[in-house]
Amino acid sequence: MASQPESSLPERSKGEQGAEGAAPSKSALKKAAKEKEKAEKAAKRQQQEQQEREKAAQNDTASHLYGPMVYSSSSVPTGRYIEDLGDLNAVEEETKVTIEARVYSTRKQSAKLSFLVIGEGDHTIQAVVAEGGEQKISRQMIKWCGGINTESIVRITGLVKKPFEEIKSTSITKYELHVQEIFMVSEAPEQLPIQRKDCNQPPPTEEEGNAEKEGLINVSLKGRLDNRVISLRASAQQAIIELQSEVSFLFAEYMRKHKFKWIQPSYLAGAATEGGAGVFEIKYFETKAYLTQSPQFFKQMAIAGDMKRVCINGPVFRAENSNTKRHLTEFTGLDFEMTIQNHYHEVLSFGEQLMIFIIRALQTRPECQHLVNIIKKAGYPEAGDFQLPPGDEAVRITFAEAKKMLKESGYDIGEDEMEDIDTAQEKALGALILSKHHTDFYTIDKYPRTLRPFYTHPDPTNPLLTNSYDFFMRGQEIMSGAQRIHNYDLLCQNMREKGLDPLAEGFRHYTDAFRYGCAPHGGGGLGLNRIVQFFLGLRDVREATLFPRDPGRLAP
Amino acid sequence: MASQPESSLPERSKGEQGAEGAAPSKSALKKAAKEKEKAEKAAKRQQQEQQEREKAAQNDTASHLYGPMVYSSSSVPTGRYIEDLGDLNAVEEETKVTIEARVYSTRKQSAKLSFLVIGEGDHTIQAVVAEGGEQKISRQMIKWCGGINTESIVRITGLVKKPFEEIKSTSITKYELHVQEIFMVSEAPEQLPIQRKDCNQPPPTEEEGNAEKEGLINVSLKGRLDNRVISLRASAQQAIIELQSEVSFLFAEYMRKHKFKWIQPSYLAGAATEGGAGVFEIKYFETKAYLTQSPQFFKQMAIAGDMKRVCINGPVFRAENSNTKRHLTEFTGLDFEMTIQNHYHEVLSFGEQLMIFIIRALQTRPECQHLVNIIKKAGYPEAGDFQLPPGDEAVRITFAEAKKMLKESGYDIGEDEMEDIDTAQEKALGALILSKHHTDFYTIDKYPRTLRPFYTHPDPTNPLLTNSYDFFMRGQEIMSGAQRIHNYDLLCQNMREKGLDPLAEGFRHYTDAFRYGCAPHGGGGLGLNRIVQFFLGLRDVREATLFPRDPGRLAP
Repeated sequence: MASQPESSLPERSKGEQGAEGAAPSKSALKKAAKEKEKAEKAAKRQQQEQQEREKAAQNDTASHLYGPMVYSSSSVPTGRYIEDLGDLNAVEEETKVTIEARVYSTRKQSAKLSFLVIGEGDHTIQAVVAEGGEQKISRQMIKWCGGINTESIVRITGLVKKPFEEIKSTSITKYELHVQEIFMVSEAPEQLPIQRKDCNQPPPTEEEGNAEKEGLINVSLKGRLDNRVISLRASAQQAIIELQSEVSFLFAEYMRKHKFKWIQPSYLAGAATEGGAGVFEIKYFETKAYLTQSPQFFKQMAIAGDMKRVCINGPVFRAENSNTKRHLTEFTGLDFEMTIQNHYHEVLSFGEQLMIFIIRALQTRPECQHLVNIIKKAGYPEAGDFQLPPGDEAVRITFAEAKKMLKESGYDIGEDEMEDIDTAQEKALGALILSKHHTDFYTIDKYPRTLRPFYTHPDPTNPLLTNSYDFFMRGQEIMSGAQRIHNYDLLCQNMREKGLDPLAEGFRHYTDAFRYGCAPHGGGGLGLNRIVQFFLGLRDVREATLFPRDPGRLAP
Repeated sequence: MASQPESSLPERSKGEQGAEGAAPSKSALKKAAKEKEKAEKAAKRQQQEQQEREKAAQNDTASHLYGPMVYSSSSVPTGRYIEDLGDLNAVEEETKVTIEARVYSTRKQSAKLSFLVIGEGDHTIQAVVAEGGEQKISRQMIKWCGGINTESIVRITGLVKKPFEEIKSTSITKYELHVQEIFMVSEAPEQLPIQRKDCNQPPPTEEEGNAEKEGLINVSLKGRLDNRVISLRASAQQAIIELQSEVSFLFAEYMRKHKFKWIQPSYLAGAATEGGAGVFEIKYFETKAYLTQSPQFFKQMAIAGDMKRVCINGPVFRAENSNTKRHLTEFTGLDFEMTIQNHYHEVLSFGEQLMIFIIRALQTRPECQHLVNIIKKAGYPEAGDFQLPPGDEAVRITFAEAKKMLKESGYDIGEDEMEDIDTAQEKALGALILSKHHTDFYTIDKYPRTLRPFYTHPDPTNPLLTNSYDFFMRGQEIMSGAQRIHNYDLLCQNMREKGLDPLAEGFRHYTDAFRYGCAPHGGGGLGLNRIVQFFLGLRDVREATLFPRDPGRLAP
């Protein structure tokens, strides 16, 4: 590991980060010109090196066995191509294989012997380059191998052999790879801003800072996100993103099975609803447009167009200047909307069963469990311990019952019965429900009318309440849903009571949908990033987001 | 059908449409106030009517059998609930059923007898309301039924019976429904801007205008899109959108089977790439941001982060002032990116097999064929006649071969071998390939370097060409793809040659990804809307889009 720098600080200065989004300045242009000059010099140097290498190669018996990878239409692997490094465990001894993976470390033992650790995620194998042999491996080749920068990608052909003794430093312990050919596919630089291996554990809390932990440097969340391409190579970080992929596929699977149609809403709207607060404004040719805040209106218009059951997987944009561990300006929404036959609890039950299906699959399907185990092994304290209700019977309480539970446990829930439960109380409630009902997933039903948007259907039996619900995982909200108002007059009245004009440009098409006749319906919008965050118990939603966006981050 | 207006013109004036996206004017506010007054008057009138109705009800033996639908937590259907109207064909005679669907038409035969046509998409059944019987159905109830506005949604409980003779005007011919109870779930107004039934055929060409066709009024595409909620109820229009849903599910199915990870790119970027042309600018708190033009950079960064195979289903934004039948400012991209082992044709073959899988499924799976048949029956001339290559063996020609084919058929392909094939020639080529190779789907490989973006990998054997390809359906492009440059120096050089600065804010994170080492890779981006458009042979991509956006349309 000698070639890896000790410091995990990014190469780039903070000043440069801050310039994100600005137009290229004079100094940037100057810098670009300088860079060009540098590149030309580098090219010249490369050429010289190439010539020197060619000279040396005249005395090199192995010059055809290593060096830059050259692709031709006939370039085929000379050994059996192993797609996943982990599969090496399953091949027979003495098999000739070809692999393509990263160099995790190099060690030049002597002029006659080099060792490399070749890796792909959690799978690693030791590769041995030894002088002589059938191939007549040269000292030049051994030197070249010992000098490969870590994180470079190489293609190796060689023989799978049993080592003298079991190798303890790699995941594949029973084999090593005796290199016959090694070509450079993609060369990494000598210095990287952060190291992959320093990202394979939970990022430090703000108090911990960039502290070394158990002998490892632990890169801050900011450092990881600034250098996403490198931190993503850390197996735990990649597993988190892959688990998000699983949730998307599971959502699609469940929706398809239940005859939902996958629709594409529009993300551009001609007028801002709700007065423009929380909505991003766009220059749209000669006029303005807005990024929609949610696909709510489009889902409901599809229902009014008789589509019965629709679902969406797409971005949700929020122009909210919130800088918390669970807010982003852009996240992924898993939305569904369905007609109701008799009672809005049909929708609530459907949503509960959907969530139980997804979480149960994450806990039981081998491909998901594999990912959870990687994350758990990397030291995430809550990964793998998520509790579903016994017998998969969803636990559902009303808003009033939730407040009562909090009060009985000594929490100050205020005088007003309609006052919201705050974030801290929500978390406390999560703990109360876990101890009473043994589940980390539950729903709260029947929220007060004052707390819900204008399109939420009132409770016909109590005008102060609504037919609405939130879903929770570990005491934190992952979904908001409700029966929606399908009666045009009631909708207009409700909007006016909330100070909105049902005939305004931004609402007209939406309200018309109900004027033209619409079936009773309800639905919900799940936050994909939050599902992953709370299932795994991650501290920050950014960890569960491939390229997070917040008021201060617009790159990479 | 007497209650349906003869005109299909929208109620709203064109002037109002043009105000899309503008801030509410004084006249709009005045109008809103007027509207409020109107609503209050209407409420008063409703109250009076209600009182009158209650009076009349005192002499009405059937007053509990009809009227507004009232929901209570115990409201359950009194008959067997039939979810899909088409399922009525399968029930036994004399079954008591409950259905909820739209009133397509009403006919008051006499004071003692009313007929209704109840419909759901293409499925229709005749409902009979006759005086007397066990329920003591009253003349008031019959009058009420005869006066229901079409497109209203009603809940009916009644007996399924054989009619005296087969009914020719409904899709269910062997049964009629003898109404015992009928409640109003959602009332449509007397006048609608367009009629559902006038949208169930291809929209008129510009030459045809809003002309009557075979006795039906044919609503223009603009009229349909302005009133999407109504036109979407037309079974052919809904089937087109449902077919789009099938393509999304099929894409996900194929990707999952081939171990792709479903990633979420960001749609917001801090700097505009390629100089900002074609990119929408956003106000982002105190700074600016841009809507990404494609997920290209994010897909490639995921590959550089060792994700191997990634796919995306999401919006693509293009700030291009194109007003054609195949361009939108927002469409859905089905994107994939994968590492390459030996040759970029691995990616090309994968893409071809993906498309053949999707199209073959659309042609053979019963749920898809059902949709194609609805569209075909509605008179779309090319629906259902799409040709796949014999034996599902993809037809692949090079750009040079394509030009040669055109030249041999007498087309002027210009002097320059590197000159692009224009849209008209592409269509002609589609016809040539159909006649020669009997396929509507094919690919063109090896485009000139001058025609492709900077990240396209050059052809190692010919510096004028690239390892890139387009996919075509019926002579029109549905996908662009290529091997991408994974070598940092080559990428920077290529960017500089195209006048781009690899170190500019908008590129820095992207180019760094390759500096840190990246495996060879390639991919493509399919246009979901175009796949549906060209598979069905629709004239305009807007027909294959639920809520289309173009330079002149930002609503509904």
